[in-house]
Amino acid sequence: MELAPPLPRTSPLHDFLAPGSIAIIGASTDPTKRGYKAMVGLIKDGYPGAIYPINPKVDNVLGVRTYATLDDIPGPVDLALICTPAATVPGLVADCGRKGVKGAAILASGFRETGPAGARLEQQVLAAAREGGVRLIGPNTSGMFNLHKKVNLLALANVKPGNIGFISQSGNMLLSLVLEAEHNGHVGFSTYVGPGNQTDIGFNDYLRYLGEDPDTRVATFYVEGFRDGQRFLHNAREITAVKPVVVYKSGATEQGKKAASSHTGALAGSYAMTVDLLRQVGVSVVQHSNEILPVAEGLGLLQHAPGKRVAVVSDGGGQATIASDRIIEAGLELAELGEATKKRLGAILLPQASPVNPVDVAGSSDANPALLADCLAIVADDDNVDAVFLVGMFGGYHIRFAEDLLGGEMRGAESMIELARRIDKPVVVYSLYAPVKPPALRRLHEAGLPVYTSIEYAVRVLAALGERGVYLQDAANQAPLPAMMPNDATLAIFAAAQAEARNLFEFEAKTLLRAHGVDVPAEALVRNVDELDEVAARFGDRPLVMKVVSKDILHKSDAGGVKLNLHGRAALREAFDQIIGSCHAYKPAADIKGVLITPMARKGIEVIIGVSRDPIFGPVLMFGLGGIFVEILEDVAFRAIPLSRYAARSMVEQIRARRILQGARGEAAVDKEALVDLLLKVSSIVAAYPQLAELDLNPVILYEDGYAIVDARVIVNQTVLNPKDEA
Amino acid sequence: MELAPPLPRTSPLHDFLAPGSIAIIGASTDPTKRGYKAMVGLIKDGYPGAIYPINPKVDNVLGVRTYATLDDIPGPVDLALICTPAATVPGLVADCGRKGVKGAAILASGFRETGPAGARLEQQVLAAAREGGVRLIGPNTSGMFNLHKKVNLLALANVKPGNIGFISQSGNMLLSLVLEAEHNGHVGFSTYVGPGNQTDIGFNDYLRYLGEDPDTRVATFYVEGFRDGQRFLHNAREITAVKPVVVYKSGATEQGKKAASSHTGALAGSYAMTVDLLRQVGVSVVQHSNEILPVAEGLGLLQHAPGKRVAVVSDGGGQATIASDRIIEAGLELAELGEATKKRLGAILLPQASPVNPVDVAGSSDANPALLADCLAIVADDDNVDAVFLVGMFGGYHIRFAEDLLGGEMRGAESMIELARRIDKPVVVYSLYAPVKPPALRRLHEAGLPVYTSIEYAVRVLAALGERGVYLQDAANQAPLPAMMPNDATLAIFAAAQAEARNLFEFEAKTLLRAHGVDVPAEALVRNVDELDEVAARFGDRPLVMKVVSKDILHKSDAGGVKLNLHGRAALREAFDQIIGSCHAYKPAADIKGVLITPMARKGIEVIIGVSRDPIFGPVLMFGLGGIFVEILEDVAFRAIPLSRYAARSMVEQIRARRILQGARGEAAVDKEALVDLLLKVSSIVAAYPQLAELDLNPVILYEDGYAIVDARVIVNQTVLNPKDEA
Repeated sequence: MELAPPLPRTSPLHDFLAPGSIAIIGASTDPTKRGYKAMVGLIKDGYPGAIYPINPKVDNVLGVRTYATLDDIPGPVDLALICTPAATVPGLVADCGRKGVKGAAILASGFRETGPAGARLEQQVLAAAREGGVRLIGPNTSGMFNLHKKVNLLALANVKPGNIGFISQSGNMLLSLVLEAEHNGHVGFSTYVGPGNQTDIGFNDYLRYLGEDPDTRVATFYVEGFRDGQRFLHNAREITAVKPVVVYKSGATEQGKKAASSHTGALAGSYAMTVDLLRQVGVSVVQHSNEILPVAEGLGLLQHAPGKRVAVVSDGGGQATIASDRIIEAGLELAELGEATKKRLGAILLPQASPVNPVDVAGSSDANPALLADCLAIVADDDNVDAVFLVGMFGGYHIRFAEDLLGGEMRGAESMIELARRIDKPVVVYSLYAPVKPPALRRLHEAGLPVYTSIEYAVRVLAALGERGVYLQDAANQAPLPAMMPNDATLAIFAAAQAEARNLFEFEAKTLLRAHGVDVPAEALVRNVDELDEVAARFGDRPLVMKVVSKDILHKSDAGGVKLNLHGRAALREAFDQIIGSCHAYKPAADIKGVLITPMARKGIEVIIGVSRDPIFGPVLMFGLGGIFVEILEDVAFRAIPLSRYAARSMVEQIRARRILQGARGEAAVDKEALVDLLLKVSSIVAAYPQLAELDLNPVILYEDGYAIVDARVIVNQTVLNPKDEA
Repeated sequence: MELAPPLPRTSPLHDFLAPGSIAIIGASTDPTKRGYKAMVGLIKDGYPGAIYPINPKVDNVLGVRTYATLDDIPGPVDLALICTPAATVPGLVADCGRKGVKGAAILASGFRETGPAGARLEQQVLAAAREGGVRLIGPNTSGMFNLHKKVNLLALANVKPGNIGFISQSGNMLLSLVLEAEHNGHVGFSTYVGPGNQTDIGFNDYLRYLGEDPDTRVATFYVEGFRDGQRFLHNAREITAVKPVVVYKSGATEQGKKAASSHTGALAGSYAMTVDLLRQVGVSVVQHSNEILPVAEGLGLLQHAPGKRVAVVSDGGGQATIASDRIIEAGLELAELGEATKKRLGAILLPQASPVNPVDVAGSSDANPALLADCLAIVADDDNVDAVFLVGMFGGYHIRFAEDLLGGEMRGAESMIELARRIDKPVVVYSLYAPVKPPALRRLHEAGLPVYTSIEYAVRVLAALGERGVYLQDAANQAPLPAMMPNDATLAIFAAAQAEARNLFEFEAKTLLRAHGVDVPAEALVRNVDELDEVAARFGDRPLVMKVVSKDILHKSDAGGVKLNLHGRAALREAFDQIIGSCHAYKPAADIKGVLITPMARKGIEVIIGVSRDPIFGPVLMFGLGGIFVEILEDVAFRAIPLSRYAARSMVEQIRARRILQGARGEAAVDKEALVDLLLKVSSIVAAYPQLAELDLNPVILYEDGYAIVDARVIVNQTVLNPKDEA
């Protein structure tokens, strides 16, 4: 699999997230104060750069000479940690600007989150920063560290340098991961930042920094709400091509969202939509908080699998079954082992063992645990296998059976390490002895092979590796399709609608689609009764539909404005008179443009294609089956516009009701490529017309060959000009 | 909540699972042998009863005098552990019988699981056991322990006596839980048994034993396949009324099931059905293997909550949100706090704190962690709250902020313990410091308050407590409804069908239903054309349906045997002739009884009610919405027959499409009580007629008032006699 080359260093954040010198403004001799703890963190970890405590009242903090003000510092300062109360911050940031400080991290709360006065104070801070060319972390940040540079401003004990970069809107979540990592004993971090109020630097900047940071092999985010989600998606697409990006988004439920927004005041879109859009750009979305660390660890170490076919090697049938259950539930596959592989396994296993996947060695390894490594090597050599998963009690054989098995375990561990280096497929280990950290498991961990304490965590990691692999592998189809060129006729349609402050008529929406190559059924706009005969002749003997055209009639059926299944001239004339009469009666002042006549669509599978503009993520396309599927089951998929071909295909595969499209219940499968093309055309059309606020194709009827767009609605943004007018 | 009184001691298993004396047949001096390890386990744990090692070749094992044979033992023997190879077992079990041994645990494999020869050997063992009055654990058992009686035949180190009884078809799963428990430091076990091949004693016997065992407060099962599931449900219903029963059923997916059955050879029904049936009798089903121990621990300590409304107290907004998300996803509710509660909270919290649920104390506890206990006490006093959940860093305040906060944490822990004793609502704690086991958390644990290492685990426990509470609370509606009395006319219908070796005709199935009080639309069986006029007159001007009646025509529509929407005499006559003609043409030899005429059913919501007899669980009723809901989405609920009113109600509430029954999309809600009554009647009818093999009401159309049964099909079991004939 070809990964994109490492990203060049363009982010200004490197200058102060990997600082050569640090000032602690509000350095303190009180051990309970952050201005003391930060000093402890720097000194204990052996920060090699210059440390400048600022405190006019004492001459040293922890033996380091203090300065009364920033101006007194002899050398340059890259990063200032501001530990003083909110009211002092605007002045101090101005000081930073004068001193040429590159970045300031502001711990104080008491800004926007407290109300209008705090918001004004925050604006002053931002103004001072812009004026002085200082970049801001926070305010209201929980702090930061960069452990590879020995910058431990949080003074956390027992946290190791490692490859997980972490940005978290919850300080408790950082603490939780650090404690889990300490407990695990092997997982470490590169850079952590609490973004706080994101007054200046936001998620998108941190994402780029972590993407560029060579010490970070997995960029991990705990997000309560995105601000500029569209930019995040854009950056993430670039960075996931190089390294894994993990996101836990809180507010999965309506109630959870309420709790999140009372906390941060950030806007939050629909959770399901957010997850779909993040996955669209290759982000690994974690849905349980206790899976953040295992998944980040696994992706950091193993990066990706070539695909989703997992081979399980187990020394117990029960756990082989559990592993199989979880693998299938996670959307992975149990690899089908080739005949040669089964033969090779059969040659080293006892007769009662099962050489099919999941491979249950059934006692074959009891006296020789290194045999498990041999089994892993055999299944890893199989072309049908994308990842290998060891399940059982490896590492604990010498505890459970006999001490002299330790040698075999250590040999097995070395073989597994060698295997992992030799092959381009991840080796993932679950051991029920993981909690007691026996020597063979410690050795695996040290060599960069993760060992998990539950089958469930291990499978989450395998799923993340496989999903990432599938995403990367189809890079050829991952490029978002470009916007179409708007054409003059359709620009004129929008202009006319804006001039009349109305939305597009159905026939105009269909004209727009047709102008850009969408297959729209023939139709006729009829303004008076005399045109009906010509229309009747044109459509031949197909049954027809007639619908009123009026900007003043929104609910056509309620107004008696729709007639179905019309045959012949007489029926058309009668329907025309009835519609006009009924609509005038319904709304005497209605401006009726005429009626639209189209052939009735054949029966098929009804789907909905909708587009709206999300305030956070920009234009988003929704796809789902019609009726109850959308309204009751909420069985829909979302993708950000512009879509790639991969995105369009994957959204069709994603819905639960996909079996209906495949031809369930004795019906033929629908024309999936035509559907994918339609989704892509809609995406490219929407990208071309900023005047288009919303679009609804409901229903589109899918057939074995092609589709019919039965109704089309376009809501116009009255305030956006035609791009040509703007130019 | 009234719990049923403790069960009286009726199980014979107490005699040897809490043995007064133990013989180790095949006791060994080789430290790698089970016959050595069992001796170590008994001696190390200080087993107070008599230990008799049997080994004719040495005079002692670990200093305990050996005997050459069982017969040489001077005193009685309650339990024999047989550690010798399979071939020796029949003779040894016969020895046990002569000696009066009450139970024998057989470790050897090499029986049924290896093929016909092994199966014959197993039959010999069983015959010897029956002959001698010996009960058998295994063969192929992973072993057993009863830690309260110091019977540790597995010689597991570091496993504590506790309240979790565990029966596991996977020895690795026991080992995994024991290692997790060791790591946790507080969780312990009562009795463990590996049931092995269940040749004699099976799950149902172990369930009863654990139900009666006073040392067991939660009966926990890892099951690959049930044999007599009907009996398990029956026993479980009785035991869940007294104490929690936890089941993890492996084989959740088709592939997982394959792995499970290659392991045990046990039959396994549909996983979704098994889960529904277990929940029906109050079992707490766990779906992830890493949740078995947390849930068993929580249920063992806390037993149940009065309901599902949880109040969260948190010292961080982020984790409050995560907790809220998980609570809603788990089907629990965020309790709505009363005004008085909010006022009391407001009085002790800082202004920036949020006194609504989830309660985010927002720094109020930073200098006084005991305040969290006060908050818990306040929300626990609220009548709208069924359980309280502390989320955050309690226990770690003295680590994070200042050492002198330890006193406040210890005071807080004491208050929480006192609160838990005072109220009848569970107190569940998640702490991000749980992995480092600080003093306040150790204190909580010692006092029987569980502390979880992840929000996800804690919420699984809250869900199990709440579901159990709701189940127990509706005890009045939990009694399965009795079978109806079969009546002579319907017995005659079955007898006639059996005499002709056919299934019931639709009109017979409907007659059966009508005879037992089910509301079935009027219908007429017409044998010749002359009867049509009278029928037409009887049904007035309602549109009618005509369907052929013939045991030889299964697919009526294919044969042209169905005519819809018939108006008037002429139409009836024409339809009659067409149906008879078409069916004769379709199958010239068909025996045509006539046609069935009924009024067309009005439109409404189509549902399916089906009954089949599961080989493991007996008669099972399935309910779901019609069409794609059953066929594509598999959105159905199962309940074992006979149903209780609670079961019938809960299955209607369980389906994902329940909103459609509630009147989505502008339609009126259906008559749910009529539906529940129909489900209960079907249950009581099926229970009355063992001759009924399958029943299908498809569709039943539900209305705002009542329902219409449009089609009814009954498959007859040709080998079951009428109960009256048998008597």
